[in-house]
Amino acid sequence: MINIAIIGFGVVGGGITEVIRLNKDAIKRATGNEINVKYILDLRDFPDSPYADRVVHDFSVILNDPEVKVVCETMGGVNPAFDYSMQALRAGKSVVTSNKELVANRGVELMAEAKKNGVSYMFEASAGGGIPEIRSMRTSFGGDTITEIDGILNGTTNYILTKMKNEGADFADVLAEAQKLGYAEANPSADVDGIDAQRKIVILTAIATNKLASCDSVYTETMTKITPADMDAAARFGGTVKLLGSSRIDHEKGKASIYVCPTFVPGSCPLAHIDDVYNGIRFNSPVTNDYMLYGRGAGRMPTAGAVVSDVVSVLSGVGAKELPMDWKTAEADFVLPFEENEFSYYVRIKTDSADETVEKAKLVFGDVQLIDGAPCGCVEFITAKIKEKDAAAAFESGALGEIESRIRVM
Amino acid sequence: MINIAIIGFGVVGGGITEVIRLNKDAIKRATGNEINVKYILDLRDFPDSPYADRVVHDFSVILNDPEVKVVCETMGGVNPAFDYSMQALRAGKSVVTSNKELVANRGVELMAEAKKNGVSYMFEASAGGGIPEIRSMRTSFGGDTITEIDGILNGTTNYILTKMKNEGADFADVLAEAQKLGYAEANPSADVDGIDAQRKIVILTAIATNKLASCDSVYTETMTKITPADMDAAARFGGTVKLLGSSRIDHEKGKASIYVCPTFVPGSCPLAHIDDVYNGIRFNSPVTNDYMLYGRGAGRMPTAGAVVSDVVSVLSGVGAKELPMDWKTAEADFVLPFEENEFSYYVRIKTDSADETVEKAKLVFGDVQLIDGAPCGCVEFITAKIKEKDAAAAFESGALGEIESRIRVM
Repeated sequence: MINIAIIGFGVVGGGITEVIRLNKDAIKRATGNEINVKYILDLRDFPDSPYADRVVHDFSVILNDPEVKVVCETMGGVNPAFDYSMQALRAGKSVVTSNKELVANRGVELMAEAKKNGVSYMFEASAGGGIPEIRSMRTSFGGDTITEIDGILNGTTNYILTKMKNEGADFADVLAEAQKLGYAEANPSADVDGIDAQRKIVILTAIATNKLASCDSVYTETMTKITPADMDAAARFGGTVKLLGSSRIDHEKGKASIYVCPTFVPGSCPLAHIDDVYNGIRFNSPVTNDYMLYGRGAGRMPTAGAVVSDVVSVLSGVGAKELPMDWKTAEADFVLPFEENEFSYYVRIKTDSADETVEKAKLVFGDVQLIDGAPCGCVEFITAKIKEKDAAAAFESGALGEIESRIRVM
Repeated sequence: MINIAIIGFGVVGGGITEVIRLNKDAIKRATGNEINVKYILDLRDFPDSPYADRVVHDFSVILNDPEVKVVCETMGGVNPAFDYSMQALRAGKSVVTSNKELVANRGVELMAEAKKNGVSYMFEASAGGGIPEIRSMRTSFGGDTITEIDGILNGTTNYILTKMKNEGADFADVLAEAQKLGYAEANPSADVDGIDAQRKIVILTAIATNKLASCDSVYTETMTKITPADMDAAARFGGTVKLLGSSRIDHEKGKASIYVCPTFVPGSCPLAHIDDVYNGIRFNSPVTNDYMLYGRGAGRMPTAGAVVSDVVSVLSGVGAKELPMDWKTAEADFVLPFEENEFSYYVRIKTDSADETVEKAKLVFGDVQLIDGAPCGCVEFITAKIKEKDAAAAFESGALGEIESRIRVM
């Protein structure tokens, strides 16, 4: 019998007790032990829970109990989660977390503290819920270097974009419905403005490079401006629009381009077919060469399952040994300035004279590829690759007329 | 510096030396060591290879050298690969393999021998090439039980089916082209008759259950009878035809249904969008609940990369610790008789009187769902779920008229 504690008894924290109960046999087979949830730390009491007698309100009870080997931190937010985690690590307890905000902001210190104390800091559930992409990156690419990451990293926005695609519906209407169904928060900004995806792509990039970039250095564009007309154009182009978190890594130069933005994804890319609340993460590397994981990026049970798989790993004596991670805070110039990246763009321009507009566009973009079936009074095309800063200058100059929409192409 | 040996210097064996050279830095970061290929066992000499001086023809040289810690077996076939692997394990060397035929047939003994000697027997590359599905199953479901596996497990047949779908081409023509391009063997039976996929689904089922079924107990249907008319019907149905290896596991009863057959896959399933030589493996489990891996299932570098990731795992001190595997030979009745499984069927029947045929079909199948746009003189429908033996009896009775095609639906 191995004792653990859960700190933060919300959706994920509650799910952990359920996963441990459901998969008792599998856990025993994997670790040779049963897991006992000895303490649950929360501000609230849970008089009707079968775990009511485990609830404590004082973290020091957990900290000072040498029987507690692993602390599952599912509180969310940077503080007090950071302080509690550091104290637990210093006390020789491994810490497992689902807290992406904490990992994305303070992962360097937490990992160093774990190493110092010979314990593990594990965070599979923090990026991609039930998708084991962190373990995959740590163990399966042991003989390889990841150079590209593209991910649908947020289930709420993917649900919204899927509904918009299938029903031709407006963003605002779908969001309102998603909020009613509990798929989107009352304040949806963290999802729809890309902040959640930003934290996750920062974490994934750190696993590939051992350098934790500052979240602020990641260009992040909201998906709230995507319209049914955009989805329709993407469909005619043979793909769809997804909110992607992307990373392009130059290991030799020690630099990365990292950004989150709505993106035209061609149908030939498997990410285009990942719908509803599902997430997908695609990797490229010289050897493994194009590899994707797909699954439930969020939700009570999948996320709790990822936490428990980390606990199992720690108890099996594997834990952080899987691949020694030794994150450093990235240098200030680690992330390339966004405007230096090159993209193709989807562009829709209001015009009375399509031919003239296309001629003007060719002067700016070199070559353009027209999309058939543009809405009345509009022309639509895909540009050749152009530096972000040059594209932005062209769009802002007004020389191309009234630009209804512009979306980067994968 | 850690010394390893490669036995079998073919496509994959050669790739291993290349991956080790390419990813020297990443390997050193992961293991704290460099890997040195000390010996290469092959019947041939390779005078022009930079590794010419490592080539030996006598396995005992490797066996008796205590400096060799890991043997990479990329010979293929059951013998002498089995004998060499057993000898290496007994000599206290870990063995890493890409040999699916060996693992599917003798995995139980090899794993037991490894355990007895405190070393690892690892086989990530044996099912799914560059896709790390074995490691995923072993580590990421530590807190969960896998109940369903569906996989596109063979790149050659997926390439053929993709070409048939995109070009409306015949099987025979596409096969001939694939052979010319080197994507298909001169004798393509292992691929197109499902034998390769059979071995892989047996391995994947063993990882989920710890029971190694006999390959002979797995119903396996060729995909050579799939026609352009079938692909066209699948497209009208909103999906496509894929050769799937499938497993449905009842952990409580300790039974599994395992089969390989061409299958109608609806467009809503991400497997429908995995094209060309790519493989995809979808898992279901109560907690993680729908999870898929996608990548290169074969090929020199991805497969060699998977071998090297196993070597890295062994050298990191993780190896078989990831999840203790203790395969037993499955009981004779572990695999449920195929005819007891239930499937929906796609059916195309030649008829002058569609209405009459549909009425007859309803008598057999309860309900049927017509597919619009059937070829002239044919009717096409999807049946309700029916026991395989009842479906087979109905198809063979002749009561439904001339059945042009019948394909199980996922």
